[in-house]
Amino acid sequence: MQRTKIAETVKKIHKIIKILGRAQTIRDHGKVTFIDVVDESGLVQTVTREDVNVTPQDVVEIEGIVKKRPANLVNKNIETGEIEIEIRNLRIISKSATPPIPVEGEGLDIDEDLRLKYRYLDLRRPRLQKNLRLRHEIVSLIREFLNNEEFVEIETPYLSKTTPEGARDFLVPSRLHPGKSYALAQAPQQYKQLLMLSNFEKYYQIARAFRDEDMRADRQFEHSQVDIEMAYITQEEILDLVERMMIYLCKKLKRKVYKIPFPKFTYKEAIKKFKSDRFDIRSDKKDNSLAFGWVTDFPLLEFNKEENRLTFSHNPFTAPKEKDLENLKKRKDLDKIESYQFDLVLNGEELGSGSIRIIDPNIQKEVFKVMGLSDKKIDEDFGHLLKAYKYGAPPHGGIALGLDRLCAIFAGEINIREVMAFPISGGGQTSVMDAPAEIDNATLKELKLKKL
Amino acid sequence: MQRTKIAETVKKIHKIIKILGRAQTIRDHGKVTFIDVVDESGLVQTVTREDVNVTPQDVVEIEGIVKKRPANLVNKNIETGEIEIEIRNLRIISKSATPPIPVEGEGLDIDEDLRLKYRYLDLRRPRLQKNLRLRHEIVSLIREFLNNEEFVEIETPYLSKTTPEGARDFLVPSRLHPGKSYALAQAPQQYKQLLMLSNFEKYYQIARAFRDEDMRADRQFEHSQVDIEMAYITQEEILDLVERMMIYLCKKLKRKVYKIPFPKFTYKEAIKKFKSDRFDIRSDKKDNSLAFGWVTDFPLLEFNKEENRLTFSHNPFTAPKEKDLENLKKRKDLDKIESYQFDLVLNGEELGSGSIRIIDPNIQKEVFKVMGLSDKKIDEDFGHLLKAYKYGAPPHGGIALGLDRLCAIFAGEINIREVMAFPISGGGQTSVMDAPAEIDNATLKELKLKKL
Repeated sequence: MQRTKIAETVKKIHKIIKILGRAQTIRDHGKVTFIDVVDESGLVQTVTREDVNVTPQDVVEIEGIVKKRPANLVNKNIETGEIEIEIRNLRIISKSATPPIPVEGEGLDIDEDLRLKYRYLDLRRPRLQKNLRLRHEIVSLIREFLNNEEFVEIETPYLSKTTPEGARDFLVPSRLHPGKSYALAQAPQQYKQLLMLSNFEKYYQIARAFRDEDMRADRQFEHSQVDIEMAYITQEEILDLVERMMIYLCKKLKRKVYKIPFPKFTYKEAIKKFKSDRFDIRSDKKDNSLAFGWVTDFPLLEFNKEENRLTFSHNPFTAPKEKDLENLKKRKDLDKIESYQFDLVLNGEELGSGSIRIIDPNIQKEVFKVMGLSDKKIDEDFGHLLKAYKYGAPPHGGIALGLDRLCAIFAGEINIREVMAFPISGGGQTSVMDAPAEIDNATLKELKLKKL
Repeated sequence: MQRTKIAETVKKIHKIIKILGRAQTIRDHGKVTFIDVVDESGLVQTVTREDVNVTPQDVVEIEGIVKKRPANLVNKNIETGEIEIEIRNLRIISKSATPPIPVEGEGLDIDEDLRLKYRYLDLRRPRLQKNLRLRHEIVSLIREFLNNEEFVEIETPYLSKTTPEGARDFLVPSRLHPGKSYALAQAPQQYKQLLMLSNFEKYYQIARAFRDEDMRADRQFEHSQVDIEMAYITQEEILDLVERMMIYLCKKLKRKVYKIPFPKFTYKEAIKKFKSDRFDIRSDKKDNSLAFGWVTDFPLLEFNKEENRLTFSHNPFTAPKEKDLENLKKRKDLDKIESYQFDLVLNGEELGSGSIRIIDPNIQKEVFKVMGLSDKKIDEDFGHLLKAYKYGAPPHGGIALGLDRLCAIFAGEINIREVMAFPISGGGQTSVMDAPAEIDNATLKELKLKKL
């Protein structure tokens, strides 16, 4: 007999059907036993008068007759609440031991390390099922929107070169070149700019980005970003595209946007009005709408107290405003130089950052120098990019949006781990599998390394 | 004035328009100069009687009048061949030095290391532009098909645990746990199986996979795969899904499929008939059609001469046929045990491999033992998976298709590097950027490592 998906059972009243799924709550009322069964499409109540040795979480195959429930027994909380399946035959496909963590309920009170160790159980809870499906929908809609706008998705490498000016890199020692290493890409930033020099004009990628940073609720060693770059455009055109994309997403997912067009503030205005560049414009913070806003005209450089020097506020490739180029050259009022950097904020959180890029290698070099990089260092670390600009560069710019955070906000979750399938724990442990693991000495030797 | 995309210029006869793009061939005929200009949409001829200092590869802004060409000067090789643009104003946005490699033509005779070093120039050639756009189309169509079939795309981690039974891992030393390391995932194999234990029934992902193997034309350190897993299915249902997906792809891209349904052979039949499990069924190998075929019933184990022991022929999670379970237990005729492994071949190349997985932890343990793994090793390396199966596992299986190879065959390319934006060279060097790079000692110290 062919399988009927549980969501379809309501259409099969009086029919004999077969369902496949996992047993949930089992209620033994003496003469009758009720077994709730779930598959990916829904939950249904089955009922038998026989003795069964099913326990919760068993994977079962059930043949039975779909029966309408009497009006007083209809369960309005579930889609199949008007029916139940009278079991004719029940087969246990795979028996489950008692789960070490409860898999029903929200699960937020369970120790998180335990939830991640048994993530395959944890993911069975409806909240996480819903979150991951919502994430798929968000990603699909973003792709749909960008494909319709004639963007081309291009995969860029993850094994790349260290970027001295970013966060800490993950290193990947090379076996072919012992003593040397790749770095996991912190972002496709340079690659997407190179693509604009390659005559692509509309690039995007749902890209993984790797950063060896200390973990927080909104940080993971690897996170995903909606990465966009466009050539022959202005800042206004990027803002317009992203705004339309977010409105498209909200419309398709039936979410209320707090204000359209998105309110726009310069960095100065935002600091003056909200004392922060991550503002929440909602008058009531519990308001269940999505309050987007733009911040523009960020300063090009900011003072890094730890290192006692100026560093970029967004990334070292952001273009300064033309009006301030003279000051850049003269090293005058450096902290007041404005740039073409912009941020998208959502409900008080920074969702993404973008900019118009420098295309003049001389200006790029000035910016590196102002940041204190020596000619030698500039050449070693960014020589390839400065060289690339010599072969004709179209004006270009783009943005990167934090996908995990976007999904978390849409799902009403505070922690981005709740919208990821197999996140890394706060202590840097992988879900389910026991990593990081001891490096064996033979492997280290091949990499021409040894432990200290 | 607003920009007109070059493909649109043919619709603007007698109009004054502005185009933005890159100068290609420049033909100076004394009194008149012809400048071909490209943008992402196409190529158009512009013409001027003035002196211009444009050189090839400059990025330019041109204002001019669109004029119909006389019939005898129409160029049928280009979409805009019926018109030309009479330049009124030409501005050089960004000057190009003479490119170190030619960017017109196929480029196949240029030293590949040089092509990769200047990949941003190399990618300007129409062949590579076309290849990457085709790749985007293929990926979009695959996603469209799987989304319509109600698959959920789920991202799985790349920072993972070493898999002792696969190819060589890339290690990523941990800073939080010095002396220990993550491994870059060789495939999402275990994660997708865990997702099936998590009540997801239709998973896919366009996933990156990392393998530290010696490079060949069809190998890269990181490659992409269309990764699929389904629960509550049979082998026939997986084959049917993938076959429909490939036919959908070919139909949308207007490619001829050599034979539908795809011919299907058992491993034994294939070896007997073609002396290979990677057969090409086309009677004429130059036939420009796509000849898919299935191979099924692979042996579960194959003898590894180097290691003088039996190892898995696909992966250690592949289910043996029920009829051979007795022999597995009795260690009888081990090399004759058949499995639920299947391969998809295309024009004589292996495009992908899949299987129905073991869901009984006892059988899984038997397979590990037959492969020579000690109880201790089994527990260390696969304990998490054996444990996971104890909490109820639905029957499941899936496939992984090599996306780079698929795109290469569709694009008519032999080398997968021709369908990747920034591939790694045969010597393990990254495109454009100079990696791998020397690891600095401070970083090594933080990882509690030192050079030998």
